[in-house]
Amino acid sequence: MAQQREDSTSSEMRHDWLADRWVIMAPQRSARPNDYVIGPPRELSNQNCPFCVGHEDWTPPAVACYASSPACKNQLWSVRVVPNKFPAVNAHRRSLVDPLSCPLSANAVTAEDLLADTDAIDIHDSAINLFQRRDLTGGHEVIVESPQHLHSISQLDQEATCLVFTAYRDRLRHWLDERELAYCVVFKNVGLDAGASLVHTHSQLIATDILPADVARASERMELFVKKESACLFCRMAEDELEQQVRIVERTVDFIAFCPFASRFPSMITILPTNHQPRFQSLGDAELEQLSRLTHRLVRRIEACYPDAAYNFIIHTSPNRLRCPDSFHWRIELFPRITKVAGFEWGSDCYINPLAPESAAAALRRARI
Amino acid sequence: MAQQREDSTSSEMRHDWLADRWVIMAPQRSARPNDYVIGPPRELSNQNCPFCVGHEDWTPPAVACYASSPACKNQLWSVRVVPNKFPAVNAHRRSLVDPLSCPLSANAVTAEDLLADTDAIDIHDSAINLFQRRDLTGGHEVIVESPQHLHSISQLDQEATCLVFTAYRDRLRHWLDERELAYCVVFKNVGLDAGASLVHTHSQLIATDILPADVARASERMELFVKKESACLFCRMAEDELEQQVRIVERTVDFIAFCPFASRFPSMITILPTNHQPRFQSLGDAELEQLSRLTHRLVRRIEACYPDAAYNFIIHTSPNRLRCPDSFHWRIELFPRITKVAGFEWGSDCYINPLAPESAAAALRRARI
Repeated sequence: MAQQREDSTSSEMRHDWLADRWVIMAPQRSARPNDYVIGPPRELSNQNCPFCVGHEDWTPPAVACYASSPACKNQLWSVRVVPNKFPAVNAHRRSLVDPLSCPLSANAVTAEDLLADTDAIDIHDSAINLFQRRDLTGGHEVIVESPQHLHSISQLDQEATCLVFTAYRDRLRHWLDERELAYCVVFKNVGLDAGASLVHTHSQLIATDILPADVARASERMELFVKKESACLFCRMAEDELEQQVRIVERTVDFIAFCPFASRFPSMITILPTNHQPRFQSLGDAELEQLSRLTHRLVRRIEACYPDAAYNFIIHTSPNRLRCPDSFHWRIELFPRITKVAGFEWGSDCYINPLAPESAAAALRRARI
Repeated sequence: MAQQREDSTSSEMRHDWLADRWVIMAPQRSARPNDYVIGPPRELSNQNCPFCVGHEDWTPPAVACYASSPACKNQLWSVRVVPNKFPAVNAHRRSLVDPLSCPLSANAVTAEDLLADTDAIDIHDSAINLFQRRDLTGGHEVIVESPQHLHSISQLDQEATCLVFTAYRDRLRHWLDERELAYCVVFKNVGLDAGASLVHTHSQLIATDILPADVARASERMELFVKKESACLFCRMAEDELEQQVRIVERTVDFIAFCPFASRFPSMITILPTNHQPRFQSLGDAELEQLSRLTHRLVRRIEACYPDAAYNFIIHTSPNRLRCPDSFHWRIELFPRITKVAGFEWGSDCYINPLAPESAAAALRRARI
């Protein structure tokens, strides 16, 4: 592989400060033999696709629709947001009624209360309950990104891509305006290995009334950084990356994209606004368009390096109810799924990455797009 | 699917006390459609297999060999342990020399020192280093489980399986006797989706001079449980599971196997000794044989429920240099890889499991083996 460090025959550990986790960089492992030879998965025809134009009644009714410019005026919609028919969370009333009619109740259980409850179990209760359950409410939506049966966001034109990012912003606003909800994430699974079950290009949004432990930990680490350094973690990281240059993939006026120093997966890319911004949903229209163009190019770079590769992307925006919400810096993580997570990783949460981020960034920069 | 809870149309969260992580149980998600249809991967012929009998010189020289009973006396070996040719860690001197000649140096850096160093960075240093690196030393071995080109431990006979478990015990003893090393894990990746690159049945061992963050956290949680409850977490869990019965898959004289309450993957199985035992490598011969038979049956149960499924298994044994090493209770985690980890999980470390552990256990119990 062109991306492999040819000079390196030993392992090195790198510390992911945010996750407080060491990652093993082991480029020599990419030379090992492989018995498995598989082609791309067979796909069913689009006649059965619930996301294609004409099949709108196969999904629950849309909660939002975006239409494209006059050039596409024959289409009723370009981007369509629908509740997930097989939701991972139980419906919060915000999924059902007009948001304006749902002011925050003074008695509402907040994410802080829930975290405090969990702490209380650890520290104060006399008996630990090993069989604790709770309900989970929130929302689970699908953002259908094209009326056509396309497979990747890279097949959309710039205008359609920008509408997709507009939908992300609007839906994050919708869910995070509800202060009873703690957390909301937009993510994209493309291809079987990335966890997709449908081929038609789409993203998903999950909102929950609980803050996942990893997100709580990462938010606390960002607060700790601000406290110790009087600066934001990701503002500092952006500066350092721009100075060191070796891991930068692209830079635009307002954003940088780089392969993070302690990437746990090969060719992982982080996209950051260079100015401090806690919430993705605060983006203005011009920034949003710039970001959608950048992301589109980055996906094309990944697809040029790894044809047919599955990929994920995740928008991390400030959850509700943090102690210091402004210490959060939103970011996108984008990564192809070209290695498998194996027993060692599941047992230790320590990842082995066979491709140095510096080599990954160089290959992504060189990609012809 | 027979394993699906048919009565359930809503999600529930369950708390994994050890990991301090909530898992989403969402049985309704298993009904969603799937575009992807793939068969088992094509495999290269065993003529190219470095683990087959006759190809011994394709690997580094064996560090241990186990021969089977007279019935197999025509074979030179039944189980063979070799250093991994593509190691994820740099060689510790224990990989190279006679262990007896390596007493612990008084000046050796211990895992505790390393942890203390990491803490020091967080709490005392004036400047946080976002680009911290360190060396990683230890060992990475392959346990080749048969001279024949078999694909799963379930194809071995009982005697050969017991020799494999004897090799696990011996190699864990070898590496964890070296007090400079902090951590040692035995794991098994079967099939492409479980992270295997070679088909020939084998396990791996990785020993490191650093304690992975997740293992440190889990060890601390076990200490916390002992402190608060004056009992071991897994002794209590075994008692509770035996009382509740609904998640038990099998019970033997000295072990139980059950689907844990907050399983993050479908059909995950935990195997525990019912009497408190911190270290897998303390097992006596009779217990080891009993455990190897039990594990063999459990793998057959998984393969009966999910033909051709990839699976992982991980032996968690007490690492070195814990404050209270006796609060650790060793365990095996065994799980088929039938769902993919997607954007939501990578973004939040919160897992969505479409199969209730109670349903999984019932299906595994019913499996014809």
